[in-house]
Amino acid sequence: MQKKHSVEDCQKLCKKIFLSIACSPANASIITEVLISAEKRGINSHGLIRIKDYYEMFKAGRIKANPNIQIERESPSTAVVNGDSGFGAVVGHYAMELAIKKAKESSTAWIAVNNSNHFGIAAYYSMMALGEDMIGIAMTNANPLVAPTFSIDKFLGTNPISVAIPTAKQPPFIADFATTPISRGKLAVMHKLGQKAEKGLVQDAQGDSSCDPNVLTEGGAILPLGGDRAHGSHKGYCMTAIVDILSAVLSGANFGPFVPPQVSYLKLKDNLPGKGLGHFFGAMRIDAFQDAGDFKNYMDLWIETFRNAQAVEGKTVIIPGDPEREKEMLAEKEGIELLESVKKDLITIADELKIDASFLQNQ
Amino acid sequence: MQKKHSVEDCQKLCKKIFLSIACSPANASIITEVLISAEKRGINSHGLIRIKDYYEMFKAGRIKANPNIQIERESPSTAVVNGDSGFGAVVGHYAMELAIKKAKESSTAWIAVNNSNHFGIAAYYSMMALGEDMIGIAMTNANPLVAPTFSIDKFLGTNPISVAIPTAKQPPFIADFATTPISRGKLAVMHKLGQKAEKGLVQDAQGDSSCDPNVLTEGGAILPLGGDRAHGSHKGYCMTAIVDILSAVLSGANFGPFVPPQVSYLKLKDNLPGKGLGHFFGAMRIDAFQDAGDFKNYMDLWIETFRNAQAVEGKTVIIPGDPEREKEMLAEKEGIELLESVKKDLITIADELKIDASFLQNQ
Repeated sequence: MQKKHSVEDCQKLCKKIFLSIACSPANASIITEVLISAEKRGINSHGLIRIKDYYEMFKAGRIKANPNIQIERESPSTAVVNGDSGFGAVVGHYAMELAIKKAKESSTAWIAVNNSNHFGIAAYYSMMALGEDMIGIAMTNANPLVAPTFSIDKFLGTNPISVAIPTAKQPPFIADFATTPISRGKLAVMHKLGQKAEKGLVQDAQGDSSCDPNVLTEGGAILPLGGDRAHGSHKGYCMTAIVDILSAVLSGANFGPFVPPQVSYLKLKDNLPGKGLGHFFGAMRIDAFQDAGDFKNYMDLWIETFRNAQAVEGKTVIIPGDPEREKEMLAEKEGIELLESVKKDLITIADELKIDASFLQNQ
Repeated sequence: MQKKHSVEDCQKLCKKIFLSIACSPANASIITEVLISAEKRGINSHGLIRIKDYYEMFKAGRIKANPNIQIERESPSTAVVNGDSGFGAVVGHYAMELAIKKAKESSTAWIAVNNSNHFGIAAYYSMMALGEDMIGIAMTNANPLVAPTFSIDKFLGTNPISVAIPTAKQPPFIADFATTPISRGKLAVMHKLGQKAEKGLVQDAQGDSSCDPNVLTEGGAILPLGGDRAHGSHKGYCMTAIVDILSAVLSGANFGPFVPPQVSYLKLKDNLPGKGLGHFFGAMRIDAFQDAGDFKNYMDLWIETFRNAQAVEGKTVIIPGDPEREKEMLAEKEGIELLESVKKDLITIADELKIDASFLQNQ
């Protein structure tokens, strides 16, 4: 049984799907790149599994194939971008390119984005800065699933942050993490496998500690990073809140509980206070602070030092970005493994759009 | 027994001590303000308890009373500042003023600082931006006490981040948090009281989970926020690492394990790769993104929404900055309560410097 599929086959199918819904070739390529990049980096919760949601959101008229992205306000080092309800990848790519362009001229640049949608993996955008000898930063708010410390209400998303930092001989430092201890996707997998969640990840509808991975469907919530107050959950809450404010209040998007659902079967609320979902991007030229060569050598020393930290027996000390890069290299060689349910969805969509997806059936 | 002392008395004593070691009146005032601000905000681990360490560091020639702070490199929106081994408060205040000044002209500004020392509470600096309708950001690296995920070595500090965000009628949003679940100070208090630490805060010398609050003196380490891998400690590790890199690699200060100890009884290592301890500051003009009034009203809505989140029974949902502001108001009214050991140290220093500290003995 062939379990893996070539990156090229997956790429082609993905691009054809987005071309078929009338995305411009450039837009279809960007969405494809972001989704395939997630698959390759082992973050399949943000990979081809999303195509179904994106496609349904498009069909429901909640995502535009070719948005008319506008700069609402700008200065040499800042801008607010209105994504015109485009695919998050298209809007995010535009905004990060703008950050890099502005940083070239103004040393640093910061772009707040409103009226966007789910943008995939944050690292895709932060990594765009690496080749320019810049530090790249990307963050986004997301569907509310997380209860602030001492709250029952799900008012925050898993709001990820990514920071990509250039290096000389070492591979770049690439942090990309949800600001919560666990994702909805991982909880769903635990539930399917009949596993219990460890204490400190979720709470029930009363705000009491729970080990039921299905608790989100029963009024429960994901906890902030830290779990409970005694373990610093108020710090995780602060971090998630900061991402929400930079992504949504600064941009004029919807914050916290008002973030529009990124699946078509959940309705949009009426009277939303802002525009769509929000992101925040940054780019900082290294040479605005240090000679880029010196910095990258010093960054290599940072990485070598931490990689050589004494490890707990049987473990390896990880440099942010290492696990994803290893998976990426493996995927290039061996291909991408898709869940059966994802294949089934892709085949259904391909049939609907009259695209050949027979490679998915070659088993 | 009079347990509290007036803010004014504490302020005067503090300023006299720093004037007596030949700090300029401006520098003595800044150090005093930062330390008193910590006491008032209830963060006494960063308050007058620090005077002894600062004084000993000064006497050991490791901190200068009146540093010759230099800008090593700058652009309209960035600078690298060399703190010339000054008190962290003096250097930090200079750098944050520079960030605000540059942001006035360039919308945003980012200052990386090397050759500095312990700067007190990060919120002091971020809050400086509030009156200018800017978002203020401050972070610093710190003595290595924290083990990266899967490591035994203490390679990172408790590296705090503060973000201060202006509001209209609501009090400002002020997040200020160590990027670890617990501080050394709190562990020391637990040990003194004979308490056990909860699981997920520290590990022993082998990297195994521990509940001994005294574990740092026995080769153990503080864990990153999250505790262990299953609870997202790799995300806490990422965050602490990012603060370290922005504060030290970008500035040319000492990173992670090389951060110079901020107490005189611990020797400086030889052949340090960088200069002193590092900070990173940012200021972003609100009106570079939104009309400042609109933003502040929207920020009020954010705060009102979260303050009205349904709370767990018997609890209150907290807005970052609320607890510290309440303590600040109480301190203004009732004064500051000092630990007996802190009073004793202050009296000893005052005697040495021939300063009247008799108010501390009025009991």
